[in-house]
Amino acid sequence: MAELPTYRFAPAFEAPTGSAIRELFKYLSQPGMISFAGGYPPPALFDRQGLAEASERALREAPVDCLQYAATEGLPMLREQLQALMQRRGAEVALDELMVTTGSQQGLDLLIKVLLSPGDRVLVERPTYPATLQALRLAGVQPVGVATDGEGLATDALREQLAGERPGRFRLLYCVPNFANPTGACLPMTRRLELLALAAEHDFLIIEDDPYGALRFAGDPVPSLLALQHQVPGAAGRVVHLSSLSKIVAPGLRVGWMVAPVPVRQRCTIAKQTVDLCTSPWAQRIAAEYLAAGSLERHLPLLVAGYRAKAERMLAGLARLGRQFEMTAPQGGMFIWGRCSGGVQASALFTQAVAQNVLFVPGQAFFGDEPDPQALRLSFAAPDLAAIDDGLARLQRAFEAL
Amino acid sequence: MAELPTYRFAPAFEAPTGSAIRELFKYLSQPGMISFAGGYPPPALFDRQGLAEASERALREAPVDCLQYAATEGLPMLREQLQALMQRRGAEVALDELMVTTGSQQGLDLLIKVLLSPGDRVLVERPTYPATLQALRLAGVQPVGVATDGEGLATDALREQLAGERPGRFRLLYCVPNFANPTGACLPMTRRLELLALAAEHDFLIIEDDPYGALRFAGDPVPSLLALQHQVPGAAGRVVHLSSLSKIVAPGLRVGWMVAPVPVRQRCTIAKQTVDLCTSPWAQRIAAEYLAAGSLERHLPLLVAGYRAKAERMLAGLARLGRQFEMTAPQGGMFIWGRCSGGVQASALFTQAVAQNVLFVPGQAFFGDEPDPQALRLSFAAPDLAAIDDGLARLQRAFEAL
Repeated sequence: MAELPTYRFAPAFEAPTGSAIRELFKYLSQPGMISFAGGYPPPALFDRQGLAEASERALREAPVDCLQYAATEGLPMLREQLQALMQRRGAEVALDELMVTTGSQQGLDLLIKVLLSPGDRVLVERPTYPATLQALRLAGVQPVGVATDGEGLATDALREQLAGERPGRFRLLYCVPNFANPTGACLPMTRRLELLALAAEHDFLIIEDDPYGALRFAGDPVPSLLALQHQVPGAAGRVVHLSSLSKIVAPGLRVGWMVAPVPVRQRCTIAKQTVDLCTSPWAQRIAAEYLAAGSLERHLPLLVAGYRAKAERMLAGLARLGRQFEMTAPQGGMFIWGRCSGGVQASALFTQAVAQNVLFVPGQAFFGDEPDPQALRLSFAAPDLAAIDDGLARLQRAFEAL
Repeated sequence: MAELPTYRFAPAFEAPTGSAIRELFKYLSQPGMISFAGGYPPPALFDRQGLAEASERALREAPVDCLQYAATEGLPMLREQLQALMQRRGAEVALDELMVTTGSQQGLDLLIKVLLSPGDRVLVERPTYPATLQALRLAGVQPVGVATDGEGLATDALREQLAGERPGRFRLLYCVPNFANPTGACLPMTRRLELLALAAEHDFLIIEDDPYGALRFAGDPVPSLLALQHQVPGAAGRVVHLSSLSKIVAPGLRVGWMVAPVPVRQRCTIAKQTVDLCTSPWAQRIAAEYLAAGSLERHLPLLVAGYRAKAERMLAGLARLGRQFEMTAPQGGMFIWGRCSGGVQASALFTQAVAQNVLFVPGQAFFGDEPDPQALRLSFAAPDLAAIDDGLARLQRAFEAL
């Protein structure tokens, strides 16, 4: 083979590092490994019957919808179904504000293209979803952490942080108010209203990423920032809402959606014309048929009950670890965030855990800067109850081996 | 409703214009309209039976592959099938060089992210695919046109154009060597070798976009730039190849692929982690089943025969327009590019054509600068033979009404 030329890349891609979580994949092939690492829905909780029926109906009743290009905003049938879903979630949205995206991940990518320039600064929860940190960095945008606690974004701390800045210094704040990745925290009503007031006062938009909100297994629902924006003077038009069918139907569809003020949504559509033209119309039609048949409403209680049982099992098991491990119990979602006590480093525990054949995600992946070396994320979503018990016994042995 | 805040957008999105071709969609709803505008495959030529079988098999045999997240590079089964397809097309590629993309459009988006910075200049055929021009502009990159003729990119003109420039002045050249959109031209062997030599001499990469190459209905195949790169000193590692199932299986899958030197492919995978995580695994598995069953090889001759018949019908009809219209007959693909004679403007013809209930695309959409006001693109792909006859009769009346 001839020698390759010397390639020149965009600055952010000269020596990029991939996803730290995806790096853990190599351990998954270790025989007998139990994984508390990835946030993958368990195959046992997929609604295979409902999805098979939706798939069969889509191709039988609308083969051209499935096989042809669709409008960039999405198939009308799916947009109407998603509008109705948002209404059931307490938010009245106009069709013109709603577009389909290739997973909610694409929503973030489009918003970065449309709203941000290299050198801009964006507020994020600290810790937060690693792919958001990565997407911002690859676009030359600087993520700036905001403190969180067991109830999510610390709006008092945010107010202090913003006090010295001129309005407009930050264009955006990205947050996951419901069962955040990685903290599992759910932002209380008072903080939601306070956050909206800060957005109005300091002239920034809020990206409300909500893939997990429907997976509530304890406590009472809190309205979305999208629904609450009209209650706070000056906050209307400041919320862009992202959601997805990945965690409640199936990741394999890659169907998400964005609700955004029309000027933002229109520009995201123009950006999407050059990104992938449209989200797979076949997957869109299957999703639309699934929603139209009422299958999500039938299946969701089973899914939530499944997550509840798993979360309770893991929380009870973690409680038996005693003072070695501190955590806050989540009210929904897929994740438990905790800290090793007594100065134990998550990276050291990780090495022992791999030796014991159990995986988790060390906390550093979730920090833009100054990671908490004792923090770690456990997901109860994928393993079954017996594997949760076994995995926690292994984790206990990993602690003992330190 | 409260007043919306004043939004601030990235510079390229302050006042963006959408796709000129998508703007034509509004005329499609005009009753009885015959469209020679869009490059959409005709539903009558979809292999519904083969795709229904692939869909049924995918969900029955591999429900978890369909419904779960997949590796960012794509499902292994699909990558292997695409590797075999590339081999049948005369290019030996390593699996590590091949990744699945959400249509070939996403391949271009990833390459722009990874390879280019605002202010960079990229060589493109003049005229070329509008979504490429748009993607470059929205990224702050300047497209620089290279002359074309009835045989595609004029490599002599390119050599002159590059003569005064320092090597490395252009990082990339984007081209569609097989049945280009909009010109329909197929780049001859000698020009392909010359283009590769210029890439080596002037230190640029070539993006070879090849969605149409399998749709050859006349003449002999010419090897891809990807396959030819090893024959030209210094050209190895300079070709990134994009292709897609959209034009040969179904656009609704949104399944394309990229073949790139490993350092480029790896970075595109990292970019894709933040863009959509992975292409719909369900669509990927359906595509893989379709290819593995040999359905593409069975169906492609029917598809090609269908396009041949349509192209011949349209070319014969256009010949009857006589000296009003000049064109070059394509050997494949979906498009005929032509010029109105005698100073007739395509925009004036368009107005008359809409009045006669027939659509085409005025040529200006395909130029980055200084459009040829007499040029226009006709697609024979979507209408059936009778509609081609009717549409051309209407076009004749549009000419007469000028």
